[in-house]
Amino acid sequence: MLLVGESINGTRKQVAEAIGGRDAEFIKALANDQVQAGAHVLDVNGGVAGGNEVEDLVWLIQTVRSTTDIRLMVDSANPQALQAGVEACVKDGGQVPFINSISGEQSRIDAVLPLVEKYKCPVVGLCLSDAGIPPTAEDRFAVAQKLYDLTSGAGLPGEDLWIDPLVLTVSADSNAGLVTLETLRLVKERLPVRTTGGLSNVSFGLPNRPLLNRTFVAMCAGLGIDGAVLDVRNKAMMATIKAIEALRGEDPYCGAYLKAHRAGLLE
Amino acid sequence: MLLVGESINGTRKQVAEAIGGRDAEFIKALANDQVQAGAHVLDVNGGVAGGNEVEDLVWLIQTVRSTTDIRLMVDSANPQALQAGVEACVKDGGQVPFINSISGEQSRIDAVLPLVEKYKCPVVGLCLSDAGIPPTAEDRFAVAQKLYDLTSGAGLPGEDLWIDPLVLTVSADSNAGLVTLETLRLVKERLPVRTTGGLSNVSFGLPNRPLLNRTFVAMCAGLGIDGAVLDVRNKAMMATIKAIEALRGEDPYCGAYLKAHRAGLLE
Repeated sequence: MLLVGESINGTRKQVAEAIGGRDAEFIKALANDQVQAGAHVLDVNGGVAGGNEVEDLVWLIQTVRSTTDIRLMVDSANPQALQAGVEACVKDGGQVPFINSISGEQSRIDAVLPLVEKYKCPVVGLCLSDAGIPPTAEDRFAVAQKLYDLTSGAGLPGEDLWIDPLVLTVSADSNAGLVTLETLRLVKERLPVRTTGGLSNVSFGLPNRPLLNRTFVAMCAGLGIDGAVLDVRNKAMMATIKAIEALRGEDPYCGAYLKAHRAGLLE
Repeated sequence: MLLVGESINGTRKQVAEAIGGRDAEFIKALANDQVQAGAHVLDVNGGVAGGNEVEDLVWLIQTVRSTTDIRLMVDSANPQALQAGVEACVKDGGQVPFINSISGEQSRIDAVLPLVEKYKCPVVGLCLSDAGIPPTAEDRFAVAQKLYDLTSGAGLPGEDLWIDPLVLTVSADSNAGLVTLETLRLVKERLPVRTTGGLSNVSFGLPNRPLLNRTFVAMCAGLGIDGAVLDVRNKAMMATIKAIEALRGEDPYCGAYLKAHRAGLLE
């Protein structure tokens, strides 16, 4: 399962302060903590109210790259920031980053598809369009199909398109989780892509969100989700991930599970 | 999700002692505890080394029936005990019990199918045959198909056949969980039956079994499993079940989840 650490995100107060004050040590520690906790990729989002997102994102990427070689996921709503971020990643022989994200919105397609085509960046594809997040699984799937057609046309292998079925909170709509699960099922059945998600929205507004979040990740894992964007520093979530990998045959002889147990990480 | 309480089982030492000593209070308390914890059905298994299974099972059923009206699941490897158990359930207007279980083994078919036909008992159908537990999902599915054909022919509605895909421990075979998940997927896709499982075998031989068990239940829930046979008195497992029901749209307005939270059951 591809684990993307979500914590370097300017919408978080401490990170915003570190970006504003150019506190490189804080950012480096946050990067290294996530690598240590088991992230395979780090999401980097420099969006801060009142900031210069292009400069902030490039600084964040340079700062993370100065302390770890882990692969990055450039995350921005701003096309100029995305382009500058990708360029900062590949500079001096750095790895091509993931892009977070493309969607069925025309403005996102116009901004992101040329970057995907030029750099062959793996890209997260959100199942939403200019009409918003479709309420049905078939309509979300239609967005996934469109994104597959577009990115394939741009020369991206299917395995580098990571479809995110999106999830809304079950506290507002009891069917919110089911629509996500059904979208995931359709995508796995019909498209040669991979799947991921920032799944924690599902629990917004409810008590004991970690319980709901790790249970929902396991439910999606049963349907074969290939990755997740999450707080890899959450111990109970990571224990669930270790269990999922052992249960899905992704952990030969349960070696990683047993190692985590001996390290006290499963309690 | 149909929750079957598994605890009244003669293979457990304390239960065996209670059966041997005809300790009705112990059995009644075990029944009531499971009802209180949220069981919808209670499995009752009177198999004790050196006991008379027919008499023991009838005594168990009479004892449970004297304290609760909950529906029972008569569980035995012994055809005579199954028949006596079903008769003890329906006596004096009692509810028709579930039978645990039929399988693709000819001796089980011969013993159980006539009971299913006569009483229209909902029945658990195990995906194993005279050749053992098939190693592939397609071969397990073939057993499920056979059981559906047989029970349909005996007049049982598909919704009363509860297919158990069976699971072996991932500690012996990394693919054991995947085969179960794939069997479940095939059954859900192709047959108008319901699905259940005694899923805790998956973790046999590994540390922190409750973590693996509740994660695996959630993975199966993502694929739509309709029920489970489990220890409903395990608090962390039941918290996961509450989360699953909220996440699958089976808990309108998350009412049961919130109630469990207020009762301190989700910690």
